[in-house]
Amino acid sequence: METMSGDNNTDVFGSGEENMAYAQYFIGKSYLNVLSNEGVFIVNVTFEPRCRNNWHVHQAEQGGGQILLCTSGRGWYQEWGKPARALSPGDVVHIPAGVKHWHGATQDSWFTHLAIEVPGEEKSNEWLEPVLDGDYNRLA
Amino acid sequence: METMSGDNNTDVFGSGEENMAYAQYFIGKSYLNVLSNEGVFIVNVTFEPRCRNNWHVHQAEQGGGQILLCTSGRGWYQEWGKPARALSPGDVVHIPAGVKHWHGATQDSWFTHLAIEVPGEEKSNEWLEPVLDGDYNRLA
Repeated sequence: METMSGDNNTDVFGSGEENMAYAQYFIGKSYLNVLSNEGVFIVNVTFEPRCRNNWHVHQAEQGGGQILLCTSGRGWYQEWGKPARALSPGDVVHIPAGVKHWHGATQDSWFTHLAIEVPGEEKSNEWLEPVLDGDYNRLA
Repeated sequence: METMSGDNNTDVFGSGEENMAYAQYFIGKSYLNVLSNEGVFIVNVTFEPRCRNNWHVHQAEQGGGQILLCTSGRGWYQEWGKPARALSPGDVVHIPAGVKHWHGATQDSWFTHLAIEVPGEEKSNEWLEPVLDGDYNRLA
């Protein structure tokens, strides 16, 4: 397990370990620190600069989706067919179930957000195509 | 609505407005900033120094309880019959339904935590006696 070079990431909720389990669905390195496994699943997610996850959908028969609470750095959130939204510490993102989206860091900043799983029924994550450099580099 | 003197409270999730609705269950001034009303209820709670809520219980027929994610300052969490636990930024507290407890700031620090409501059935809050100065002042 590689440790972070982390000269500029000191998030209050810690970066935890490198995200190997989902690395295939990310471009760049990310880190996961699970804060709660009971009641509500909560994980602190850290993205190195330029790191972003693939387009994905939180599927659910009922309820579901995810809430992001941005804690440090700068990032992006984008829903399919919409302009990307710039994210800063304190920002809150409601990701409804069934909506295709991605999130990640900006080109020149680490980014960390809490991800809070909204309870639901028959939930699953559908991972789709990566956010290619051509599209990502255009964000500003 | 009084504004904060707030010379030493700059929490990333904002302090919001003075907590008047529940002031009767608190000693000292607290502030609430609701971050999410959909999916999972999330509020950022700020306590001025010495502020604490009364002993209380999150009742539920199923599920329920609360998760605290400490974001800034120093605070206390205590369950009935147990020693108080000192809280710092990054600390996570799972409060099970049915457990009598209180939380609040230390004597010399503001304190802020996210409060994340764990979904459940037939939920209600039972507010009990205050944490008196005699007991509070003994904490160190």
